[in-house]
Amino acid sequence: MKEIEVRVPAGRAQSYRVVIGHGIVGQVLDRTAELLPGRRVFVVTDANLARCGHFARLVGRRQVESYTIEPAGEISKNMETVGRIVEAMEAASLGRDTVVVALGGGTVGDIAGFAAAIFKRGVAVVHVPTTTVSQADSAIGGKTGVDSTSSKNAYGAMHHPSSVLVDVDTLASLDARQFNSGLVESVKHGLIADSAYFEYLERNIDKILARETSALEYIAAANVRIKGSIVQEDPTEENLRRVLNYGHTIGHAVESASNYGLLHGEAVAIGLVAAGMIEAELGLGNAARCARVKNILERLVVPTEVPEGIEPAELIDTMQRDKKAVAKWPRFILLEDIGRVYSKAGQWAVEVQREVVEKVLHILCRQ
Amino acid sequence: MKEIEVRVPAGRAQSYRVVIGHGIVGQVLDRTAELLPGRRVFVVTDANLARCGHFARLVGRRQVESYTIEPAGEISKNMETVGRIVEAMEAASLGRDTVVVALGGGTVGDIAGFAAAIFKRGVAVVHVPTTTVSQADSAIGGKTGVDSTSSKNAYGAMHHPSSVLVDVDTLASLDARQFNSGLVESVKHGLIADSAYFEYLERNIDKILARETSALEYIAAANVRIKGSIVQEDPTEENLRRVLNYGHTIGHAVESASNYGLLHGEAVAIGLVAAGMIEAELGLGNAARCARVKNILERLVVPTEVPEGIEPAELIDTMQRDKKAVAKWPRFILLEDIGRVYSKAGQWAVEVQREVVEKVLHILCRQ
Repeated sequence: MKEIEVRVPAGRAQSYRVVIGHGIVGQVLDRTAELLPGRRVFVVTDANLARCGHFARLVGRRQVESYTIEPAGEISKNMETVGRIVEAMEAASLGRDTVVVALGGGTVGDIAGFAAAIFKRGVAVVHVPTTTVSQADSAIGGKTGVDSTSSKNAYGAMHHPSSVLVDVDTLASLDARQFNSGLVESVKHGLIADSAYFEYLERNIDKILARETSALEYIAAANVRIKGSIVQEDPTEENLRRVLNYGHTIGHAVESASNYGLLHGEAVAIGLVAAGMIEAELGLGNAARCARVKNILERLVVPTEVPEGIEPAELIDTMQRDKKAVAKWPRFILLEDIGRVYSKAGQWAVEVQREVVEKVLHILCRQ
Repeated sequence: MKEIEVRVPAGRAQSYRVVIGHGIVGQVLDRTAELLPGRRVFVVTDANLARCGHFARLVGRRQVESYTIEPAGEISKNMETVGRIVEAMEAASLGRDTVVVALGGGTVGDIAGFAAAIFKRGVAVVHVPTTTVSQADSAIGGKTGVDSTSSKNAYGAMHHPSSVLVDVDTLASLDARQFNSGLVESVKHGLIADSAYFEYLERNIDKILARETSALEYIAAANVRIKGSIVQEDPTEENLRRVLNYGHTIGHAVESASNYGLLHGEAVAIGLVAAGMIEAELGLGNAARCARVKNILERLVVPTEVPEGIEPAELIDTMQRDKKAVAKWPRFILLEDIGRVYSKAGQWAVEVQREVVEKVLHILCRQ
């Protein structure tokens, strides 16, 4: 019997630039060529983005290879679509000197980022997020992936972008429901990391809902700063990064129980309310803070109660199968104040007794 | 316009243990449980391994979740198989606390390693390589992947194992062609890194071909040591790791032109001969060294000439589409002596004029 140790040295530290502004979509190819000279570009987008004219604006008069995900949306977020994208890249004779440009919302970014992660064992990707949720959240942090037939983001890879180009002009074509629900992640960022930003949202919600460019740029930058600073402290989600999951444990369960009839942000809104109620139960929060959170969510016209027809037992059952569950019960992120996450023994994700969660769910489902 | 830099810190250095011996297959589950306590095990194997009894030996009386790749072999090495494996893992309600045990040759290891790399964005894998080629080569180094419809290993991920358990007893059930062709990678290791090992192979080829346990353990350890020391210097294949590609540039082209009628090691054998001839052409080698290499390859009863029906033009064309080609022409790894790779300006992969390669291919195809 012989034993030989093989060392795997640490990967290299990298960094990437997030550019935030308006009128950026038309500059994407030039900016990409400047950042990664000589690379061949492959654009991944979806049928919605093509319809809104964003794809045409990005391409201009150039000839670029591309793949359009059809139908748009979560229904296409699976291994089959990834397989079709990488086969299209093979058919275009692309090599390791490729940069994938992902133009679209979170679904496009997740799928295209995953395709980039596995093509020739990894090529560059530049994200051009076009929704409130992807600009605030999914384009930053390197998570990519697709759904299985039974769970979301079941398969994927960590694959950091070479750059993220945020054009707030793209938000103009979003319908109100998509636009508003994506802002829930902004509310979450204020809650977990920055009370001044939370107050900015409270004060400027009208300008944001009116889609004023300066307000949209302000929140995009704040979101990137908050999410960026968290993921760079803990890129592999071992502890701190879990704070981004605030409101998501119950949110994911509600989203799943609604059969994805609720949008992600809508489900997270319910999760934020539930988290606030759990905090109040545990003495970490109080009714006044709950009311502030509920108030801003109501301004976004997102649900703050569990929709009819969904029972607590179903949510509990789903939570037991949560990806992050330990011994079949998830841990929770809780606030001790607006802008400050509660931690216990150095851990940000903490145990909450099942009875407490059940009590809150019964209240949220009864109404 | 605002710009925000997001840092991605360096990944953590790791290391893993390669255990080499006989009678190890029956200890795999215990060793895995010791290494990664509390993990749920998912075994990936193929129909051949099941037939030889290795799977039964690994499992013993335990109940383990598993997936058997069927049919065995390169024909199943595609995205569809990976999709089926991860869906089977989902169906078994597995989470991040899973360890995939890959029992089989290079194909099983590549597919199972890739499935482990993407399941829940990455779970542990333990390789139990059962062929000469996988024990010498593919189980070490972290490369995983599957073929596209047009090229080999087109999609994949770098995903290092948590351990590699090499049981030379599994080689007993290999047919002679598989056994012998896998030894070509051992010859390659001697050529690129260790003249004493090359001489060991020359002296002990009879014992190796008789599959004597001590000789098989000796070469397994030498191979792991050589490959391990190279990949740990350059895990992402930026320079030094390319020396492992010795004989592979022409080898891959021949393998592809044979429509995979040749086994990988058989094609690499031809590639090693071709590389030696290129070295002789360039004054880096000579006829005596070519004869030594050809001699040991002939003892392995692997081809040392390009099979009839394959023309130089076809090989040249394939080489132009090589994954590592720069400006449509691959670079070559060449020796300056047995055990010592030639380098130029710090680069191990060097330019060779097309005329020189064409001349050598004409000789190798004419015979």
